[in-house]
Amino acid sequence: MGNSFGHLFRITTWGESHGGGGGVIIDGCPPNLAITTEEIQVELDRRRPGQSRITTQRQEADRVEILSGLFEGKTLGTPISMLVWNKDVRAKDYEEMRTKYRPSHADYTYQAKYGIRNWQGGGRASARETIGRVAAGAVARKILREACGTEILAYVKQVHKIAVDINPDTVTQKQVEANIVRCPHPETAERMIERIKQARAEGDSLGGIVEAVARSVPVGLGQPVFDKLEADLGKALLSLPACKGFEVGSGFAGAEMTGSTHNDPFYSNGKRVRTRTNYSGGIQGGISNGEDILLRVVFKPTATILKEQETVDVQGNPTTLKGRGRHDPCVLPRAVPMVEAMVALVLCDHYLRYRAQCGEPTPDL
Amino acid sequence: MGNSFGHLFRITTWGESHGGGGGVIIDGCPPNLAITTEEIQVELDRRRPGQSRITTQRQEADRVEILSGLFEGKTLGTPISMLVWNKDVRAKDYEEMRTKYRPSHADYTYQAKYGIRNWQGGGRASARETIGRVAAGAVARKILREACGTEILAYVKQVHKIAVDINPDTVTQKQVEANIVRCPHPETAERMIERIKQARAEGDSLGGIVEAVARSVPVGLGQPVFDKLEADLGKALLSLPACKGFEVGSGFAGAEMTGSTHNDPFYSNGKRVRTRTNYSGGIQGGISNGEDILLRVVFKPTATILKEQETVDVQGNPTTLKGRGRHDPCVLPRAVPMVEAMVALVLCDHYLRYRAQCGEPTPDL
Amino acid sequence: MGNSFGHLFRITTWGESHGGGGGVIIDGCPPNLAITTEEIQVELDRRRPGQSRITTQRQEADRVEILSGLFEGKTLGTPISMLVWNKDVRAKDYEEMRTKYRPSHADYTYQAKYGIRNWQGGGRASARETIGRVAAGAVARKILREACGTEILAYVKQVHKIAVDINPDTVTQKQVEANIVRCPHPETAERMIERIKQARAEGDSLGGIVEAVARSVPVGLGQPVFDKLEADLGKALLSLPACKGFEVGSGFAGAEMTGSTHNDPFYSNGKRVRTRTNYSGGIQGGISNGEDILLRVVFKPTATILKEQETVDVQGNPTTLKGRGRHDPCVLPRAVPMVEAMVALVLCDHYLRYRAQCGEPTPDL
Amino acid sequence: MGNSFGHLFRITTWGESHGGGGGVIIDGCPPNLAITTEEIQVELDRRRPGQSRITTQRQEADRVEILSGLFEGKTLGTPISMLVWNKDVRAKDYEEMRTKYRPSHADYTYQAKYGIRNWQGGGRASARETIGRVAAGAVARKILREACGTEILAYVKQVHKIAVDINPDTVTQKQVEANIVRCPHPETAERMIERIKQARAEGDSLGGIVEAVARSVPVGLGQPVFDKLEADLGKALLSLPACKGFEVGSGFAGAEMTGSTHNDPFYSNGKRVRTRTNYSGGIQGGISNGEDILLRVVFKPTATILKEQETVDVQGNPTTLKGRGRHDPCVLPRAVPMVEAMVALVLCDHYLRYRAQCGEPTPDL
Repeated sequence: MGNSFGHLFRITTWGESHGGGGGVIIDGCPPNLAITTEEIQVELDRRRPGQSRITTQRQEADRVEILSGLFEGKTLGTPISMLVWNKDVRAKDYEEMRTKYRPSHADYTYQAKYGIRNWQGGGRASARETIGRVAAGAVARKILREACGTEILAYVKQVHKIAVDINPDTVTQKQVEANIVRCPHPETAERMIERIKQARAEGDSLGGIVEAVARSVPVGLGQPVFDKLEADLGKALLSLPACKGFEVGSGFAGAEMTGSTHNDPFYSNGKRVRTRTNYSGGIQGGISNGEDILLRVVFKPTATILKEQETVDVQGNPTTLKGRGRHDPCVLPRAVPMVEAMVALVLCDHYLRYRAQCGEPTPDL
Repeated sequence: MGNSFGHLFRITTWGESHGGGGGVIIDGCPPNLAITTEEIQVELDRRRPGQSRITTQRQEADRVEILSGLFEGKTLGTPISMLVWNKDVRAKDYEEMRTKYRPSHADYTYQAKYGIRNWQGGGRASARETIGRVAAGAVARKILREACGTEILAYVKQVHKIAVDINPDTVTQKQVEANIVRCPHPETAERMIERIKQARAEGDSLGGIVEAVARSVPVGLGQPVFDKLEADLGKALLSLPACKGFEVGSGFAGAEMTGSTHNDPFYSNGKRVRTRTNYSGGIQGGISNGEDILLRVVFKPTATILKEQETVDVQGNPTTLKGRGRHDPCVLPRAVPMVEAMVALVLCDHYLRYRAQCGEPTPDL
Repeated sequence: MGNSFGHLFRITTWGESHGGGGGVIIDGCPPNLAITTEEIQVELDRRRPGQSRITTQRQEADRVEILSGLFEGKTLGTPISMLVWNKDVRAKDYEEMRTKYRPSHADYTYQAKYGIRNWQGGGRASARETIGRVAAGAVARKILREACGTEILAYVKQVHKIAVDINPDTVTQKQVEANIVRCPHPETAERMIERIKQARAEGDSLGGIVEAVARSVPVGLGQPVFDKLEADLGKALLSLPACKGFEVGSGFAGAEMTGSTHNDPFYSNGKRVRTRTNYSGGIQGGISNGEDILLRVVFKPTATILKEQETVDVQGNPTTLKGRGRHDPCVLPRAVPMVEAMVALVLCDHYLRYRAQCGEPTPDL
Repeated sequence: MGNSFGHLFRITTWGESHGGGGGVIIDGCPPNLAITTEEIQVELDRRRPGQSRITTQRQEADRVEILSGLFEGKTLGTPISMLVWNKDVRAKDYEEMRTKYRPSHADYTYQAKYGIRNWQGGGRASARETIGRVAAGAVARKILREACGTEILAYVKQVHKIAVDINPDTVTQKQVEANIVRCPHPETAERMIERIKQARAEGDSLGGIVEAVARSVPVGLGQPVFDKLEADLGKALLSLPACKGFEVGSGFAGAEMTGSTHNDPFYSNGKRVRTRTNYSGGIQGGISNGEDILLRVVFKPTATILKEQETVDVQGNPTTLKGRGRHDPCVLPRAVPMVEAMVALVLCDHYLRYRAQCGEPTPDL
């Protein structure tokens, strides 16, 4: 259990990093949505390994195949099964992991829980699992765009100690995609790239922060009290590999604020109720209020590093281990499309839940 | 939908702040657990309003009644229904909210989503809804304690700009309960209490941070890839009223770290595999590794303040509003038992999920 | 687990036959539905004990209280909690069951599964549990009636060996309610009543068959492949106490038919596609086709009889037992509103699921 | 939604009859189960088309590929993805169905619900969808066999008007597999085969009844009140294509019985509580009692027949249609492994649910 996500737009992913491949099933997709393999591939290309000199050099084209659920270019309303074959598998890089646990990886916990693990790579805990999420996210985004005009955008806000403030109202995908680190501020991006290269040269790795904004979200998405929009977004993003924290709107900075500054005053723009500030991050009482949904997620430094580290073997004897296998010195650039996909999956699910209980939502005005 | 939480230890809560009462059903509780009304009441007393001079003065004894699922002091394995009646209801305090939206409350979003709202108080969005969570959490804690020896403890780490570092390995519940703000560092607690009094005097409110630790958690809890332990914890805590962020282990601070310092080296204590540091926060690959689970959640300043604020009425006309109704100038002290309850619910659910797939877990060594 | 039903219109019931009471929570009800306590009570009155001389003489008024989810007579979209207190409890009638298992009751299986049972009556296995179902069913029926014009009607078709064919297209609720056995054919009803009286006089009990029809069901309800409409209806009805079988359309009689007679020819009535016969029972490929949904369920003879029977005690020693406690000599008359409620719950859930995936369905033409 | 089944041993199937292929994901499988492709293939061979002269002549080897979840011959506890490619696809046979609805097929209801359908064959409504069920069922059976010694066996009890009583206690799989119609009574099997050949010659089709028995089922499986074992079995079987009815134990025959004959007297065999008769069909109060679980399901005559039938086209105009495409004149022989698979899936799911709530069940004594 645990390999499905969503209540009405429900995805189930499968696959190990060094098994035959990986994929996803979408159940609950509305019928008659026009979607092409290319529209999905473009998102997978943004997450695939080997896409630039600051990502892992594992070479995977990650070409997606759609096996069911489409007919003459449109969704049937039946399950959409999508698959990507693994190609560039080098199990021998992992021979040492047969008997040793990599620090801060999932080797030990998988072995302890299941009594067995696929030690040829990260197995199910590998970030290759996110292929299915990104493929399904592309479908979710298209539904949201067509039904509500919703636009979802993520970008790198911080790498190690290099951070920048981005205006979420105006940032464009073109700006984000203009450089390989996916930070829409060119000078900062350049510094981040240099910092990542330095980390790679040192055999080390870096953490950082991704910020995401969803614009033109219909008012009313979110289901109190447990499936609040921020709760489902938080779960979605915290389920990404290496994610250690999530915040929405004011987030942790809100701890130091007072109610009189934090409260977002209401006004009317003549068409709908708006707020003058957005410390709420577009969500009040667990329900979207039509303002931009704004959130941030932190990713820890990649666990695989090329330095010798203290660990134990499967018998519990002390030993040391030095990372091999190809890896990302910093997951942030490739995390951007993953974050967007997870936000899209949550919003699409809640859009359908809204329809079920309350009928078609009013589009953004 | 959205009023249930958990997959195997599943709770469903109901009730509005100014309806007849509120309650919870627990479905999936193991049979033959000895539990008394008093054991549940003690947790409710920690969250009830009017418990001290820094909380809301609404007077609710919040006496719990157990209506089903127990027989001769033991659980039957059937649904446990628990109920608390509302007593100190003052709907007239809210008359103005019939036509005006309180900033940063759920008034507007509920009205927009459902086309109707119970304006006599916070309705379903009120923190009174957490009564059911805390009552169910008391049952979950007892299961975990008896089956695994697990202990869950939360405390106030920060109020506004007053923060303190607490040693999660050694802090005790007695220390936490020694003062009304539930910060286990007496001098800091005193300053926090003064700060809260000041905010109340100013008609303002404050945010802050709660930290929680779970000790003696069995190795192996958590279900990759979507129901990772940190993902379910994150969802649980972000579903609490006023919560704006969640982090586990290194959390947001991990952004500025390198892999060589962040990785937790493994060693053996002769009985089981341990880690020398705990930046992972007790979870690796979404699965507990037997170290303390350590997390932090941020609560925004209470939205109700006694200052005049800009807002709109239900027709969208500009107006102003000054909070009435009794309220907490700072939710942190009462949030502590809520946080503990949510952590307990998640761990108990994953304990049962572990049993289903992998049999009885090994207790902590 | 197992005490909830439905995916979007989700009910959770609780309560034991001799505990304080029982109830239900509805989660997912659309907002702004006008509904009164009286509309729910009228259905409960049809299922309550002591309603006639052929039902159990346990005296329970079964007055329902609505504790949440309504405001000024309309649903809020939040959980609707409803409760009925037990009044006429005679635990002493059950003293013997503390140590003996009643044949074909749930005493033994509950004890074996849970290691504990509430032996004061049927506990959770009692038909009193259906109070919550019937109360929630009343809400579901109102939703279906208002949104789609759907009408659901059940009636007793057979008691022991006395059976009658009823025309499902024309039968009315008035005809069904015209007699205490709820068979819409007066002469047959009279014979059934006499047969039930005879069984009671003999200390014995009788089985029988209920037939149900749903008219004006929108085309398109049902979710292939596992949540086919007949599959969800089957589950709903087989979960009723004493139900041993379910069939839809041609049912078991279809075994002896050929395709050329069983297939339902299509034609058009100028407004929509219809079928000339209805061996499909209104469902094709798991999806409603707009024809009447027609189904039958069989109930076994009540397990409680006033004759001495062979059994064992809780130590496994042979003994005998003679039923005490008040009971129905034949559950059929009171099963009618239960069957209607379960059909309504399934259809309402699938109506909301249709809305989520496909938008508002076309009403029947 | 609707393409997943099970709560803890959860399967999700995908695929259309004339798409690229079909498959299944199992989520929740316990780790360390040894299972081979061959063990799964043997079950698929029992359901594959073209297996004998009385089934459809579509030639599909239906070779299964396991894409994930296994490592060195054992389950990992991660999702098991299995796939079968479609080979013998003749879309041109279906050209006429582009514009005409086949009577008693799912063509019309799919079109009405989704506004689109894959008319090249039965699409999602085709019995090819059951490939995934049978493959997953093979895994479930192995779990049950190894953990509890449970054995599941189904057989054809009736074809059209030719019926036979089989002793469920003693029947063997060898007897069932001894002939192509899968009726364990050789003389009756011969008559059934002749009857099916005759129907094929006439271009017609036949219905019938499958009976299934589960032996050595642990006491305690089943979750009151909605997930009673008979309710989940009923749903599972009614979700099979062409199934129109389900009964357990006495079933519909119980309508004509009295309590004094229907009640199953308890006795002790020295090791556990047993019943002298088994009208309960091995389930009491929704929970298995350790006796054989005995059930029957009815399948309607195949909708595809080679006779001209009245129907309408997609514009609603009257027309006629004569079946083409290869098809089974009687689905019963191939339904046997499907029935066994569904029973296995339900029992395996409830076995894991039992473990979660009550620990490891006692094996049959």
